[in-house]
Amino acid sequence: MTQSETVTTGRRRGGGRRGTAARRGLQAVEQAPWVKIKNRDRPTEPLRPEEVERVHDATMRVLEEIGIEFLNPEAVKVLKEAGCEVRGENVRMDRELVMELVGKAPDSFTVTPRNPDRQISLGTGHIYFGNVSSPPNYWDMEIGRKVPGTREFFRNLLKLSQYFNVIHFCGGYPVEPVDLHPRVRHLDAVHDKLLLSDKAMHVYSLGKERVEDGMEMVRIANGLSHEEFEASPRMYTNINSTSPLKHDHPMLDGWMRMAARGQALVVTPFTLAGAMAPVTMSGAVVQSLAEALAAVVLAQAVRPGAPCMIGTFTSNVDMKTGAPAFGTPEYMRATQITGQMARFYGLPMRSSGVCAANVPDGQSMWETEHSLWAAIQSGTDMVYHAAGWLEGGLIASPEKFIMDCEVLSQIQRYMEPEVCDVSDDSLAVEAMREVGPNGHFFGIQHTQDRYETAFHQPFLSDWKNYEAWEAAGAIWTPERAHGIYKQILNEFEAPPLDVAIAEELAAFVDKRKEEGGAPTDF
Amino acid sequence: MTQSETVTTGRRRGGGRRGTAARRGLQAVEQAPWVKIKNRDRPTEPLRPEEVERVHDATMRVLEEIGIEFLNPEAVKVLKEAGCEVRGENVRMDRELVMELVGKAPDSFTVTPRNPDRQISLGTGHIYFGNVSSPPNYWDMEIGRKVPGTREFFRNLLKLSQYFNVIHFCGGYPVEPVDLHPRVRHLDAVHDKLLLSDKAMHVYSLGKERVEDGMEMVRIANGLSHEEFEASPRMYTNINSTSPLKHDHPMLDGWMRMAARGQALVVTPFTLAGAMAPVTMSGAVVQSLAEALAAVVLAQAVRPGAPCMIGTFTSNVDMKTGAPAFGTPEYMRATQITGQMARFYGLPMRSSGVCAANVPDGQSMWETEHSLWAAIQSGTDMVYHAAGWLEGGLIASPEKFIMDCEVLSQIQRYMEPEVCDVSDDSLAVEAMREVGPNGHFFGIQHTQDRYETAFHQPFLSDWKNYEAWEAAGAIWTPERAHGIYKQILNEFEAPPLDVAIAEELAAFVDKRKEEGGAPTDF
Repeated sequence: MTQSETVTTGRRRGGGRRGTAARRGLQAVEQAPWVKIKNRDRPTEPLRPEEVERVHDATMRVLEEIGIEFLNPEAVKVLKEAGCEVRGENVRMDRELVMELVGKAPDSFTVTPRNPDRQISLGTGHIYFGNVSSPPNYWDMEIGRKVPGTREFFRNLLKLSQYFNVIHFCGGYPVEPVDLHPRVRHLDAVHDKLLLSDKAMHVYSLGKERVEDGMEMVRIANGLSHEEFEASPRMYTNINSTSPLKHDHPMLDGWMRMAARGQALVVTPFTLAGAMAPVTMSGAVVQSLAEALAAVVLAQAVRPGAPCMIGTFTSNVDMKTGAPAFGTPEYMRATQITGQMARFYGLPMRSSGVCAANVPDGQSMWETEHSLWAAIQSGTDMVYHAAGWLEGGLIASPEKFIMDCEVLSQIQRYMEPEVCDVSDDSLAVEAMREVGPNGHFFGIQHTQDRYETAFHQPFLSDWKNYEAWEAAGAIWTPERAHGIYKQILNEFEAPPLDVAIAEELAAFVDKRKEEGGAPTDF
Repeated sequence: MTQSETVTTGRRRGGGRRGTAARRGLQAVEQAPWVKIKNRDRPTEPLRPEEVERVHDATMRVLEEIGIEFLNPEAVKVLKEAGCEVRGENVRMDRELVMELVGKAPDSFTVTPRNPDRQISLGTGHIYFGNVSSPPNYWDMEIGRKVPGTREFFRNLLKLSQYFNVIHFCGGYPVEPVDLHPRVRHLDAVHDKLLLSDKAMHVYSLGKERVEDGMEMVRIANGLSHEEFEASPRMYTNINSTSPLKHDHPMLDGWMRMAARGQALVVTPFTLAGAMAPVTMSGAVVQSLAEALAAVVLAQAVRPGAPCMIGTFTSNVDMKTGAPAFGTPEYMRATQITGQMARFYGLPMRSSGVCAANVPDGQSMWETEHSLWAAIQSGTDMVYHAAGWLEGGLIASPEKFIMDCEVLSQIQRYMEPEVCDVSDDSLAVEAMREVGPNGHFFGIQHTQDRYETAFHQPFLSDWKNYEAWEAAGAIWTPERAHGIYKQILNEFEAPPLDVAIAEELAAFVDKRKEEGGAPTDF
């Protein structure tokens, strides 16, 4: 498909669909309510217990013998006081200390956003999905090419994130709003997030001002005192190590500030096997665990009991070109192994819904499916980037967002115990007796009583036969998704927010803009 | 994407790619060898042991109290002699008899094709993939619309089936060659299959002549005496029940003929919940099991120890339109539950790689992925239709075939124990020590020793960044697949066959054509 063709068909067909739906007054998407999805599947565990011990031992040896660089004097000071061995920026910690401090992290906790009905509980056997976060670029069928993110695209993708009930939490910026000046970008962007979404949200660890402003804005939006804000997690941050074996200054600064105030902490090493990590998958996982546990140790030294999660982003590169790959067989196994290790350390886990594909085609879906199943199989608690990600995270796409939400809503249904019910009514021997060998089940009471809720009803899948599909315009999946995207934007209503709180929030943003926002010199 | 656009871009781009590859003398696909894939993942089991007993009890009640219709007097006679209760065509069997006869079926067996290196072993914890079978229609990017199957398309898809090592067995006709007269179609089609493929193959149970001719041709191609042919399975058939609760004449005829000669037998009820089966998934599974076990009982009555497998095709319909759906959440759970029950009865299992999508787009891949993971999670032995299926089995597509084979080759890699190796060398503590916090892993010996085989190298996935992908023509997945399809056809070489055997086979086909082939009056 060329760009020009994409644009043409996207416009014409998408427009037709929207027009029809609008005339009929239909909702863009009929969806199940926001629920905490219990992951009912036993995890897939590639390692035997003694192999788990081997991975643990290697991880501890990295922390004891090689050490992690902490490029932040305050962090080094805290770790030294906690009993670590410090040489300049290199910090080594013996396994007894690591296990003692990691043991102080809770094995479960909650994050409560401004809408308490959207509270997420981590470490409780649930699986939560979040929107794509942090791509610098945007792509949609109408534009037909990769363009820099803007506040308009950012807000549109936020609307999708709020609209879909199967998106449980609101990650980082769903696309970078690069038309906002970096000095004030965090103020406008977090403001937009708090107005357009009431879901548990992420604040970037990118320097003192951004972190403190983010926490203050979440506190105001939640209508809390400072004491209430610090009493339990109301938001979360994510830091990435600078692999190999290094944590950078601003990330550590945000990490410690959030830890001190009891907010939720996720550390996700970006360990690409063969590039920033060993070419062997278990080696890359060991490095990821060492980098992650070192940050957990720091958080516990700052505030014992600080709520921590370990993230995984271990994948491999194309060894011919060095390009990162996602949703590969090696990615799946690394994710499953990390899940085994997260349970070993008693920490909740984050993974991702990711792909390397550049457009929302077949490849994008098989890669994303593989990362999604790895998340389910690993016992992942939070699935970042579960909707809308393309090009290894460099592109956010609304069509991909819609396609992913269809899949996620199928996973929600897949996890419902009703699907596997074996009550007498479900086993249906009497229904079979009634129908016998020459009838059909469409018309009988057993079917009539159940047919409206018996099966997942997709909003994007097209189940028409070929001839009917052709007569309806022969519309491929991404073009159908584009139409739904536009319809959702037309329908969108922001979640309610108390007027006094909205005014306080706006006043805070104005004040901080007047003060100059955040410095941009790092 | 409109049809005309599809055709244009498919032709131009595909041609360019083929041309370049041909000039450089490249193979279309670099692939791993044909291997038996061990399924290393513990099955996903939605039912608790007592729930398995409930499903079993309901299944037995259907067989005891409602019965199955066998529209074949010979089958009824055999079952009556075996101890079943017969009223006309209705056959009831009590659970003791069912379990006794099902217990005579082996829990594992092999099927050995004319190339003994392609022997498949069922019931041994392996997972095997087969090509799409039986669609009446064909679709490719160049034609851009649905057209009836022909012998040319049939042969082209057979070449793909033989070419890909990740296709372990050769199912029914990959598309129906409707330009061959039904009287002689089976002779030419089975002849083509035996010439173009050396993999374990299926023969349709569609009347005495077709079944007997199929067995005789396989016997000749394998160079076997009649006694050798009957000593162990050399081929297999599949029958579908006429749900609800009925087996049809020609299918039963083929089933008994193959059973008598010790060939492998697969029975796959087509139980669409809400249409030919109860609207509840466990009810639909119960009906499927009852229909399948009734056929297994018949096979064991014909020849104790006949190698049998139960298949599942339980899915749901769109309750708004009655259209069948595939790869749904309900389909996945039904497949997993059937896997639990297959283990309970000690029988190998067949499931499928299926979708409802009409074209090889994102929907086709998420639906096929769901059915593929259900196959893995259920402990399926044979995955029918694992490559090339569209429109609920009404269309065979070479682009979908290529896309599916990319995914299957990733699954092959996923199951290799090397991915999860935790030897000291893989844990790589010394490599991390060597690189330290400021280096990278590209250049070190640990990487150099392993990089060529460290990761799955896809043949279809495009891992280039957006700009490089755009510069290379911005080619979406199905168009890339089309180019590979054409290149494989150019490269294809038929597997070797002894000249004397080839002559004997051709003489048999000629003789049977002279005799008039098969009657076409049923």
